[in-house]
Amino acid sequence: MRTVYLNGEYLPETEAKISIFDRAFLMADGVYEVTSVLGGKLIDFEGHIRRLERSLLELGMPKPDAFDELLDIHRELVSINRIDEGLVYLQVSRGNDGDRDFLYPDPEAARPTLVLFTQSKPGLSDNPAARRGFKIISTEDVRWGRRDIKTTQLLYPSMCKMMAKNAGCDDAWFIEDGFVTEGTSNNAFIVKDGRIVTRLLSNEILHGITRAAVLRFAKEVQMQVDERKFTIEEAKNADEAFVTSASTFVIPVVEIDGAMIGDGKSGPIATRLREIYIEESLKAAI
Amino acid sequence: MRTVYLNGEYLPETEAKISIFDRAFLMADGVYEVTSVLGGKLIDFEGHIRRLERSLLELGMPKPDAFDELLDIHRELVSINRIDEGLVYLQVSRGNDGDRDFLYPDPEAARPTLVLFTQSKPGLSDNPAARRGFKIISTEDVRWGRRDIKTTQLLYPSMCKMMAKNAGCDDAWFIEDGFVTEGTSNNAFIVKDGRIVTRLLSNEILHGITRAAVLRFAKEVQMQVDERKFTIEEAKNADEAFVTSASTFVIPVVEIDGAMIGDGKSGPIATRLREIYIEESLKAAI
Repeated sequence: MRTVYLNGEYLPETEAKISIFDRAFLMADGVYEVTSVLGGKLIDFEGHIRRLERSLLELGMPKPDAFDELLDIHRELVSINRIDEGLVYLQVSRGNDGDRDFLYPDPEAARPTLVLFTQSKPGLSDNPAARRGFKIISTEDVRWGRRDIKTTQLLYPSMCKMMAKNAGCDDAWFIEDGFVTEGTSNNAFIVKDGRIVTRLLSNEILHGITRAAVLRFAKEVQMQVDERKFTIEEAKNADEAFVTSASTFVIPVVEIDGAMIGDGKSGPIATRLREIYIEESLKAAI
Repeated sequence: MRTVYLNGEYLPETEAKISIFDRAFLMADGVYEVTSVLGGKLIDFEGHIRRLERSLLELGMPKPDAFDELLDIHRELVSINRIDEGLVYLQVSRGNDGDRDFLYPDPEAARPTLVLFTQSKPGLSDNPAARRGFKIISTEDVRWGRRDIKTTQLLYPSMCKMMAKNAGCDDAWFIEDGFVTEGTSNNAFIVKDGRIVTRLLSNEILHGITRAAVLRFAKEVQMQVDERKFTIEEAKNADEAFVTSASTFVIPVVEIDGAMIGDGKSGPIATRLREIYIEESLKAAI
C-alpha cells in the first residue's frame, strides 16, 4: 500500500480522495509534472518545478500552499515508499468552491488541490525497451493549441496510446500539417547524416525537461543539433530516431508506421545519449 | 446541503469524493451532460442520454452500471433537492484501477465513475439575460479536434469565459480559420434578412440538443434555416445573433467584439424562438 500526499496529509493511497467538484475532475483545470527517481534521488527536480511554475502562471492558477515544500514532499514520499527507481507524479488543480462553474472560483474560496504519488519502476535505468527500441505509429495531432502548458487534458494522447497498442506498437507520434509535433508523452527526434533534428520550442509542443538536457549533453559532446520541423517521411528515411521523456529518458525508435528506421535496431547516437543522460543526471540528482 | 449521486449512493455534497486516481481527475477521460429542469421536470432528457451514449461509444468507454436507471436518478435528485428550475449535471469517467497509466484500464478492474448533482437556478425560464442580451468577444479556437464528443476538457472554454468576464462581456465565440465554430458552452447563430444561419454539424462543434430542437421549431413555424459556416464579420453585420444551450435555452447576442448587433437590443426572432422552445419543451418535459 503506497502512501500518497494530498493537501498537507500523507495518506494510504485508497484513502486519498478529492471532491467531485474539483476542477480537475470536472473541467481538466489542472497541471502536472512527473519527476524520475534513480538510486532514490530526484532527476532534474528544479527543471520540473520551474516548468510547473510556468504552467500555473500561464493559467493564472494560484500556487498550492505547500509550493515551497515540494522538494521535501517528494523526498518524503520516495523515502516512505522506498522508491529506488521510479517516478513521483505531482498534480495541481484549481480546487473547487463547492460547485461547478466555468468561471474560476475566488482564490480565497478555493485553494488549489495538490496531489503527489510515487510509482515504483524497478529497471527504469536498465529498460529493455532501450535495447529493443519503440515501434511507432503516426496519428493526426488534434490536441488543443497550448501544448506548452502541461495540463491534464490527456484524453487524446491516451486514445493514441491505445491505438498504438492495438496496432502492436509502443507509442504514437502526432502529425500536424505533415510535420511531426511530438510523441504522446515524449519529444520526438531523428538523426540524419550525423545531425540530430528535433522540433523547435513553441506552443505546439511540450518544453521537455529531458529534451533540454539531452540537447545540452549532445552539444557538449560536439554532436550537431538542428531545431526545426521535420516530416513523417523524413523520419521514416532517417538513420535513427528516438524519443525523450522524464519517465523513460531516451528510447530509440526502430519502426515508424511499419517502416524500419536505419537497420531496425537501436541506433548508436540514441544509445549514447541515453548513457550520457543517465550518467549526468545521476551526478546532479538530489 | 445538496444531495448528490455517486456510484450508486445518494450522499451529502461534501461527502461525495472520488479517488485521486480517477481518470477524469488525472487525464480528462470523462464525458458529461447537463439537463435543464423546468417546473420540476426534465427538458430534452432523451436527447441528452442519446448523446451521452454516443460520447461513450466514441471513446470506447464502458457504460456505467446504472445507465438504465439514469432517468430515475435524475428524478430522485430533482425531488430530494426540490429543484423547480435548474439543472442536473451528469458525468461519467473511465474510473481507475488504482494507478495512473495512459493506457485504458481493464474494464473488469475499473468500473466507470458516475456522478450526478443538481444546481438550483430560480429564474431559469425568466432569465434577465434573455431580455438584455449577451455581449460577446471572439477568441481563437484552439480546442482539440473532437468537439462533437462532450468531454470534460473544458479548460480553454473556461479560460475564454474568464477573458470575456475581464472584458466586461458575458461570453466568447470561437473563431477557426476566420469562421465562427461555436460559443464556449453554446451553439452560435446569426439572422440576416430573415434567414437563420448556424454552422452545420461536424467534429468541429458540439451537436447541441437545444440547437437541434430550436432548428426543428424554427422550421415548423416556416422560418428559413441555412446550416453553413459564417465569419465573425458576417456576424457583426447580422440583423440578430443568438446562442442556444441546454442550460440557457436561447439567449440573444447584442454585441460582438464591441460592435452592436442590429439595434443593440434582443432581436425578435431570437426572442420568439426562446418562447417557442420553452413552451414546447415544457409540453414534452418528463
